[in-house]
Formats: sequence, C-alpha cells, structure tokens
Amino acid sequence: MKISILGGGGFLGRRIANRLAQQGTYAGRPIAGLTLFDVAPPPAPDAPFPVTALAGDVVDLPEAAIPEGTDVVFHLAAVVSAQAEADYELGRRVNLRGTDAVVDACRRLVAGGAKAPRVVFTSSVASFSATQADTLPDDARQVPGNSYGAQKAAAELILADASRRGFMDVVSVRLPTVVVRPGRPNKAASSFFSSIIREPLLGLEAELPVPDDFAVWVCSPRRAVDWLLHAGAMDTGAMGLDRSLSPPGISTTVGDMLRAMDEVRFGSSALVRRVADPAIAAIVGTWPSAFTAERARALGFVPHGPFVDVVRAFIEDDLAATKRERGL
Amino acid sequence: MKISILGGGGFLGRRIANRLAQQGTYAGRPIAGLTLFDVAPPPAPDAPFPVTALAGDVVDLPEAAIPEGTDVVFHLAAVVSAQAEADYELGRRVNLRGTDAVVDACRRLVAGGAKAPRVVFTSSVASFSATQADTLPDDARQVPGNSYGAQKAAAELILADASRRGFMDVVSVRLPTVVVRPGRPNKAASSFFSSIIREPLLGLEAELPVPDDFAVWVCSPRRAVDWLLHAGAMDTGAMGLDRSLSPPGISTTVGDMLRAMDEVRFGSSALVRRVADPAIAAIVGTWPSAFTAERARALGFVPHGPFVDVVRAFIEDDLAATKRERGL
Repeated sequence: MKISILGGGGFLGRRIANRLAQQGTYAGRPIAGLTLFDVAPPPAPDAPFPVTALAGDVVDLPEAAIPEGTDVVFHLAAVVSAQAEADYELGRRVNLRGTDAVVDACRRLVAGGAKAPRVVFTSSVASFSATQADTLPDDARQVPGNSYGAQKAAAELILADASRRGFMDVVSVRLPTVVVRPGRPNKAASSFFSSIIREPLLGLEAELPVPDDFAVWVCSPRRAVDWLLHAGAMDTGAMGLDRSLSPPGISTTVGDMLRAMDEVRFGSSALVRRVADPAIAAIVGTWPSAFTAERARALGFVPHGPFVDVVRAFIEDDLAATKRERGL
Repeated sequence: MKISILGGGGFLGRRIANRLAQQGTYAGRPIAGLTLFDVAPPPAPDAPFPVTALAGDVVDLPEAAIPEGTDVVFHLAAVVSAQAEADYELGRRVNLRGTDAVVDACRRLVAGGAKAPRVVFTSSVASFSATQADTLPDDARQVPGNSYGAQKAAAELILADASRRGFMDVVSVRLPTVVVRPGRPNKAASSFFSSIIREPLLGLEAELPVPDDFAVWVCSPRRAVDWLLHAGAMDTGAMGLDRSLSPPGISTTVGDMLRAMDEVRFGSSALVRRVADPAIAAIVGTWPSAFTAERARALGFVPHGPFVDVVRAFIEDDLAATKRERGL
C-alpha cells in the first residue's frame, strides 16, 4: 500500500500522515511507503515505513509526488477561501490547474498499466449557498458565492469525469467548517468559529462577529481525518457517476458552541466579546448550516458526536502544542 | 453596440451573425461592429456595419477577438460531445482553458475601465444525467455522464464566479439537442435525431437506433438563436448567483417527430429504418428528456412551438442549401 498526500504539510495533511504513521497499516494492508508533497517540504512523521517529503508546485507536479505503484492519493493541496477570494489567479491556478495536474499524474499511472488509484479530494461546504434556515439534501445544487467554492465545485466535476474515464477512482468529501483549528486567529471570514473556543481555552479574549443564534455546519479535525481515511479505503462501487458527498457533521449554533465550552471549562465564554461585524456575517451567512448527509451515512461515514466532544478533542490533541507555539 | 461571436464559424455562430446582419440593431441599439472568431476565418455576412473575421485558437485568444468597447460576447467556441469523449486533452483544453481565456479577456476590458460585458455561454442538456422518465426541475444538480457535459458544467461555475466578481455579466443557456441540423449524418451519438428528419426530406434513407417511444429534449436552430439573442439582451438583475438556465425546449418522442414529419410531407417516415443500436441508445439514454424550464420562461425565454414547426423551419431555412451542398 503506497500513499501520497498532496498538501501533506497542511493542517489536515499532517494529521493524516501522523495517523498513518501510528497505524502502520491502511485499509487492512501494511503501508509500504508514504509521500508527502507541499509547497515547502512537509514534516515527516516517525513511521514504520519509508516517508518521502517533497516540495514543489502542484501545477507542475513532479512524477515523484505520485510515484509508480501509488494506491491512494489524498489531494488536499488548495488555496483556501479568503486567499482565493483575494487572488483570483492564484486560486484558479492551484485549485483548478493543480487538480488537472493530479488527473494527469493518475492518467500516466493508468497508461503505464497500473490500477486507477483512489483519489480523496477535499471539497467544501463553501461550494454551496443557502440561508440559515435551510437543511440541504444530498442532491442540492452547488451555487457557490465565493471563488474557492466555485473552484472546488468545478474540480469535483473534473475529478468525477476523470473517474468515469478510468483515470482514477475519486471520492470528493465536502468538509464542513473545521473547528477548532490550532494556531492563531487569522483573516479568514470563518476564523472566529475556531477563535471563540481556542482563545478562551488559552485564557485569551475572542471576538464574536455574529449573533449567538447563528447556525453553522462544523466538524472536528479528528473527525475530518476519520472521514478522509474512510474515503480512501471504502468501496466506491455504489457511488455511480456522483463521486461527491457531504459527510455527517454537526449543525450547531455559536451559542451552543460556547455552552459546550463552558461545560468543559466553566466560565470560559466570559472571555468572548460580542462585536457585530456585518461584513463577516454576510460572508458566512451564505454558507449552509445543515445537510441531511444521508448518502454519506449510508456509505459508512461516521456521524459526528456532540460539540462538547469537539472541545474535548481540541484540549487533548492541540491545546498544549498551541500554547507552546504561541509562547503562552 | 459592439458584439463578438467566438465560434462564429459554427452552426449556431453563423446563424447569430446572419440574424444580427439582417437586424442591423441589437437590444434596441444600432450595431457598431461585429467580430467573428473561429479556428478558421468565419464567413462574414453582408451587414450594414463593419464585420471582422478572425482565425485563431480560443485558448490563446487574441485581444482583437473581444476588442475594446465590446458589449456582448457570444461564447460558442467548443469541442462537441463525441470529440470531447474521444480526445480528453482537446476537450479540456478548448472547453475549459478556452473559457478561462474568455474570462481573462473580459477582465482586461473591465480593468481598463469598461463595463463588464454580457457573455452568453452555450451549455448543454448533456451536462445532466437522468432516466427517460424524469422531468428535471430548474435546481437539478448536474451529474454528467460524459466529458463534454462535465466540462460545460465546470465552465458554468467558472463563468458564474467571474460574473459575481464583476469581470463579466454571464448568462449560460443549457441548450437541448438541436434538430434539424443541416449537412450530413456524422459520428455523434445524437446525429440520428437530425438524420431521421433531414434524410427523408432529402429523399434518402435514415437509420433509427432507438425505439419509437424514446423521449428526447430538443429545439430548432431557429429557436436556439432566439434564446441566445434574448440571453444577450435580457435584464440579468433577477438572476442572483445562479447564472445558468434550461430554456423551454420540446419534450417529444422519436415516434412523434416522425409523425410530425409525415404531417408536413406525407409518407416521409417510410424512409426510416429501425436498426437498434444498444451502444447509441445507452449514451443518449442518460440525457434528460424533459425540463420544467420555469425559470427561463419567467426570464422571458420563448417556449418552443410543436415539433411540426421544427420540421417546417428546416424546410424553409435549410433544405435547399443542404441539397445544394450535398449535390442532390
């Protein structure tokens, strides 16, 4: 079992690499090699199998990034939402031309006689638009309100077609907003969904730009990794032409997130200040806050637990490291 | 009013050019110039305004193809379904990179201070899949079963995003199968839908590869041109983020098409031989045979008349020229 992670230095890529290193096996088979690819050389975890870390541009994807014999490719390389909105060229280049490069790499493997590799692609809730009141069914049409979402939705179509043609065997997972992200607050419109939990747990203040009853579709980094690993190992026979799915995240409100935090650390939410920001509210207000996610459940994607588990997972997995990184 | 037609030498591009030349005005304004662009220099109609015919590659779109001051761009340049299926590289290049080139040309105009030009894009019923029994609503998701349809659906997303960003003001029209096409039978899976009318009206035999009760979503070339001209002149204010629509074609059956032909030319259908072709039936059987098309009606797209009008339009517009071309 040979595995490649494109975007292997990113937030989720590193977690998948660590999980594989801990497991030593994947999909019931021993891992024979792991290749990590990113714009800067990704950190290689200690693993009971060879790990290759490569740096480069996904658009000019080197053959070594998806070497001969690769069984599974996690394609996480992307320019994220705020950046794709700020820099149209960059978003289009990485999110679309990068995806074409992955298609071509897989085509080369198949042309050389290999079995079509499984490709796991991270799409996003941001590829949809909806009101706060909607619960989107699995066949909801993607009408994105941002370039990132448009590029992700277009990439899903291109990958599904490549899959139909036998160049690969793709599963596109439309991730919810992933919270709690470690690190620092940033300029992303969605940054506050993590900040309102992470900062108080670090003893710091955070700003909440939307009302407490604002609804959002979220998942933990831990569950996102579970889903992506499931997508890489599952039977795709029942998927037909439609290679995309919305996994069963949590539909919650900001107020309920804060109450869950208080359940774990009493009084933490006192550090959250309400500072209404209509610009941010307008952006995140177009993202759907709930999906039925029936198809993903039927395909074995594990539903999310309650939000209090997300808070606990952040404390267990990331709080100490975040404190260290930020010198707190 | 300056207008460009990319794909101006094609079946529909030439008809739009001829219509504009006859009218002399468009959207209530005199036409000041028409630019026709295609892989070979398109024929320029006699017109009461300057017509420029240019040849080139849409991916390396010359600035002169969408010159300064252009108000409306008809983007019809495409690799069609059978060709895009046979040659993946070519389809991706023209249907996706070509669309990026149109985005970039419009961005340049807007960056130079111009109003975002209206872009009319021809998408296709082939970007959907459905059974013969389905009537697709306007919010049906595109799950294409062919590379052409996947590329068209992805291009719709890219153009809608470019429109949201203010680079253009796009309307994507998902055309039904256009019949009756002039010319000769070709290798396209959908070729027979035209052949079964055109060939008997020329006094020639045609083969029908599907059963008489096979349902199909069609429109005439004449109505397709009406719709594209409407898309170039309509008010897009009510469209919101969703810049695509399915115009009100005709849902008919092959048997009803033949009966309509007999109504116009008694006995013509005797020249149609039933020769079942499961391969062709499998391809065309994944295309939806009906749409509600409510949104397009509300936006002023004229519904189609009965199929007998399509037969009459072919006789009036194309029969004599087709006879001449084919030496009959």
